[in-house]
Amino acid sequence: MTSTTEILRRAAEAKNALALLTQEEKNVALSAMAKAILSSEKEILSANASDVAAAQGTISEVMIDRLLLTSSRLRDMTKGILDVAKLPDPTGRILSEKLLPNGLTVRKLSVPLGVIAIIYESRPNVTSDAAALCLKSGNVCILRGGKEAYRTSAAIVGAMRRGLAEAGFSENFVNMVEDTTRAGANELMTAVGYVDLLIPRGGAGLIRACTENAKVPCIETGTGICHIYVDSSANLEKALAIIENAKTQRPSVCNAEEVCLVNRSIAPTFLPMLKERLVDRRRQRGETPVELRLCREAAKVIPGTPAGEADFDTEFLDYILAVRVVSDVEEAIAHIAKHSTHHSDAILTKDKAAAELFTRRVDSAAVYVNASTRFTDGGQFGLGCEMGISTQKLHARGPMGLEELNSYKYVILGNGQIR
Amino acid sequence: MTSTTEILRRAAEAKNALALLTQEEKNVALSAMAKAILSSEKEILSANASDVAAAQGTISEVMIDRLLLTSSRLRDMTKGILDVAKLPDPTGRILSEKLLPNGLTVRKLSVPLGVIAIIYESRPNVTSDAAALCLKSGNVCILRGGKEAYRTSAAIVGAMRRGLAEAGFSENFVNMVEDTTRAGANELMTAVGYVDLLIPRGGAGLIRACTENAKVPCIETGTGICHIYVDSSANLEKALAIIENAKTQRPSVCNAEEVCLVNRSIAPTFLPMLKERLVDRRRQRGETPVELRLCREAAKVIPGTPAGEADFDTEFLDYILAVRVVSDVEEAIAHIAKHSTHHSDAILTKDKAAAELFTRRVDSAAVYVNASTRFTDGGQFGLGCEMGISTQKLHARGPMGLEELNSYKYVILGNGQIR
Repeated sequence: MTSTTEILRRAAEAKNALALLTQEEKNVALSAMAKAILSSEKEILSANASDVAAAQGTISEVMIDRLLLTSSRLRDMTKGILDVAKLPDPTGRILSEKLLPNGLTVRKLSVPLGVIAIIYESRPNVTSDAAALCLKSGNVCILRGGKEAYRTSAAIVGAMRRGLAEAGFSENFVNMVEDTTRAGANELMTAVGYVDLLIPRGGAGLIRACTENAKVPCIETGTGICHIYVDSSANLEKALAIIENAKTQRPSVCNAEEVCLVNRSIAPTFLPMLKERLVDRRRQRGETPVELRLCREAAKVIPGTPAGEADFDTEFLDYILAVRVVSDVEEAIAHIAKHSTHHSDAILTKDKAAAELFTRRVDSAAVYVNASTRFTDGGQFGLGCEMGISTQKLHARGPMGLEELNSYKYVILGNGQIR
Repeated sequence: MTSTTEILRRAAEAKNALALLTQEEKNVALSAMAKAILSSEKEILSANASDVAAAQGTISEVMIDRLLLTSSRLRDMTKGILDVAKLPDPTGRILSEKLLPNGLTVRKLSVPLGVIAIIYESRPNVTSDAAALCLKSGNVCILRGGKEAYRTSAAIVGAMRRGLAEAGFSENFVNMVEDTTRAGANELMTAVGYVDLLIPRGGAGLIRACTENAKVPCIETGTGICHIYVDSSANLEKALAIIENAKTQRPSVCNAEEVCLVNRSIAPTFLPMLKERLVDRRRQRGETPVELRLCREAAKVIPGTPAGEADFDTEFLDYILAVRVVSDVEEAIAHIAKHSTHHSDAILTKDKAAAELFTRRVDSAAVYVNASTRFTDGGQFGLGCEMGISTQKLHARGPMGLEELNSYKYVILGNGQIR
C-alpha cells in the first residue's frame, strides 16, 4: 500500500506541471483518461462486481444501486469526462487589469488552487467526475472514496492514471488514497501545506467530520433542508406542481424540498389540495405517496402524522414533507433563518413586495421565486458541470463549477517603480 | 464582563438589520462612528495613556510606539473611517445574470458574509479600520485586540457603539470581546454558525494559532518572506533602488524584502554594488545599514554575516537581508517555491522570457516584474482600503478590500418552472 504521506508528496510534486499545461494539453489528457476507462471496462466491471457482492446485505438496496456499475453507466462516466473537456478553461483568465498612476500594471489572473482533496461516499461516477473537473481546472486531485466502492474506485483511478501515462503526462495528476481507515481521511484533512482545498461530498456525518477536523481550507457542501413558502397570493395550481416536483422528482438529493410553509389565510383551501396531490393522487397512480408531518394547526385541517420539533430540522431525503402554517412572509423568513441549512429556499407568490422581501432577507445559496428548488445544480445554472454545492459563504456558494476550483494571483509589471 | 457567548448571540441577532441597510444608511452610520470617536478624544487618550503606562518596560519601544495614540493619530483614525464611507458599496452588485432556456432568470448577487471576527494585536487604528470596513461591507464585526491595548480598544469601541446608537442604529453592529484570555479567542475561533469569517491580523504565532484551532472559516494573512531575484539581464542601477526600497523603506511590514537571489553571472559585479548601497552608503548617510546574511558563494565576493539555513526561512522584519547566488531563473523559482510564504516575490530582468516564466511559475499572491514588493497593499492596488493580505488561495488572495468581505447568493426568478 502506498502511504497517504507519499501520495501527498507526489501530488505536491505534480501540481506545477499540471498548472502549466495549456487548454489543449489538458483536453488531450482528459480524452486519454476517458479512453483508458473504456478500454479497461472488463477490469472495472469485475472490480465493481466484487464490491457489490461484498456489500450485499450490509447496505440498503438504494445504496447498492448507487454502487452498481453497468456497461452503460461506464459509458456515461466517460461521456462526462469528455463533456468536461468541452468546457472553457477557467485558468489564465484576466479577471481585472489596472494601470496605476505610477505606471505599474496590476493584473488579476485566475490560477489553479493546486491540490484538491475530495472525500466522498460510494458513487463510482464521482471518481471520474471529480478527477476530470480537477484536471480541467489545473488542479491535482487526491480522491478518497467510500470503503464499499474501494475496488471500483481503484480500478477507475488505475485506468485514468494509465491513460495519463500513455499520453505522456504524469500519472500523479490523479491520485487515490489507499488507506481506507479513518486515519487515511484524517491525514488528508490535516495536510497543511499539501492540500489547498478539501471538498467533502456526502451525508451530513461525513461533512461534519470534515469541517470539524480539517486544518486545511475546506468547503462545506450539500446538506439541504430546503423550504418552500406558499404565500397568500400564490397561484395554487402552480404551487402544487412546484411542490410535487421539488419533493418527489428525486427525493434523495440535497435540493429536494423538506419543509413546506403555508400562509394561514390560504391554509384551509390549500392544505386539502396539497394532501390530494401528494398523497391521494399519487397513491391512485401507483406512485409513492408523500408522508405529511403536520404542525398542530395543519393537523386540524388535514390528516397526517403529527410533526415533532425534529421534523423541521431533518433532511429526510425521502417521501416525507414537514408542513407548517405561518402567519405571513415575515414568519416564513424567520422560520427559514432558524431551520434552513442555507442551501435552497423558495417563495411562491404573485406579490412583488413579498418576493423582494424574501429574496433580500433569506440568506441561502439559492433563493427562488415561483420555481422548484430542484434547479440548484451546476448543470442547470449553466456552469456546465458541478463539483458539489457549497452551503458556506467563503470562496464559493451554491453550485461549484470549474471557475470555483480556481484562485487568482496578481501579476504586477513595472519598470523600476519604488514606493 | 459580557461573556463571549452573549456577544456572539448579539452579533448574530444584529446581522440581518445591518445586511439590509442601504449605502446611504451605512455612510450615516460611519460618520456617526467617526464623530463619536472625535468627541470622545479625552476619554480615549486617557485610556491609551493607562495602556501605555502599564506596557512600559514589558514590550519594546517599537511596540510602545505602535500602541501610542495622539490627538493627530486619533484624527487619522476618524479620517480613515470617513474614507471608507466614500468607497463604493460592495453589496448588492449583480455579478452575473443569465436567462435560461426554460425562462428562469439566474442572478448572482454580492451579499455580506454576516459576522466577521478579527483577532489582532495592539495597533489601535486596526480597531476603527476593521470596524469601518466590516460595516461598509454589511458585516457585523467582533473585534478581539491585544491585551496591552485593551483599555484603548474598549474606549474606541465604546465611542463607536455610542455613535451608532445615537444615530438610531444597533450598537451591536460593532462588538468587542471583553474576555482577554486565550479562552476568549478560542471561543471566537470555534463559534461555528456564529462567525462567518475569522481574520487574524498579526505575527506568525497569532496566525498559526488561528489556522490550527479555528473551526470557523478563516483567512490566513500576512506572513511575508518576500524574495527579489536579480536576473543576469537586470538593469543594475534600478535593481539597487528597488532592493533598497523593498528592504529599508519600512522593514517591519509583511511586503518588505527578506531574501535577495542573485544570478551567478552578475554576482561578481552586482554583490559589491549591493553592499556599497545597503551598507556603506547608508552608514555614511547616518541611515541604519542592512546586515547582509550571505550564502557561501556570496561570502567569497563581499564581506557579511555567513547565512545559516534558517536565514532563508525567516521573516526578519528588520534591517537584515539574506543573500543567495543562484545559477538561473529556474533555480530562483525553485528556491522561492521552497522558501516563500507566497506573499510577494519579484524578478528584476530585461529578458521577457525570464519574466514570463517567473510570473507563470511563482505561485504567490503578488508576483512582480521590475518593481518593489512594497506595493502589495490594498491602497496601492486601487482597492481603496485593506483588511489584511491573504496568503492563502481560498476566497481571497493578496490585499483584501471591501469586495473580498462579501460573499454572493443566487436569486432565481421563475413563473412556475419545474424540473
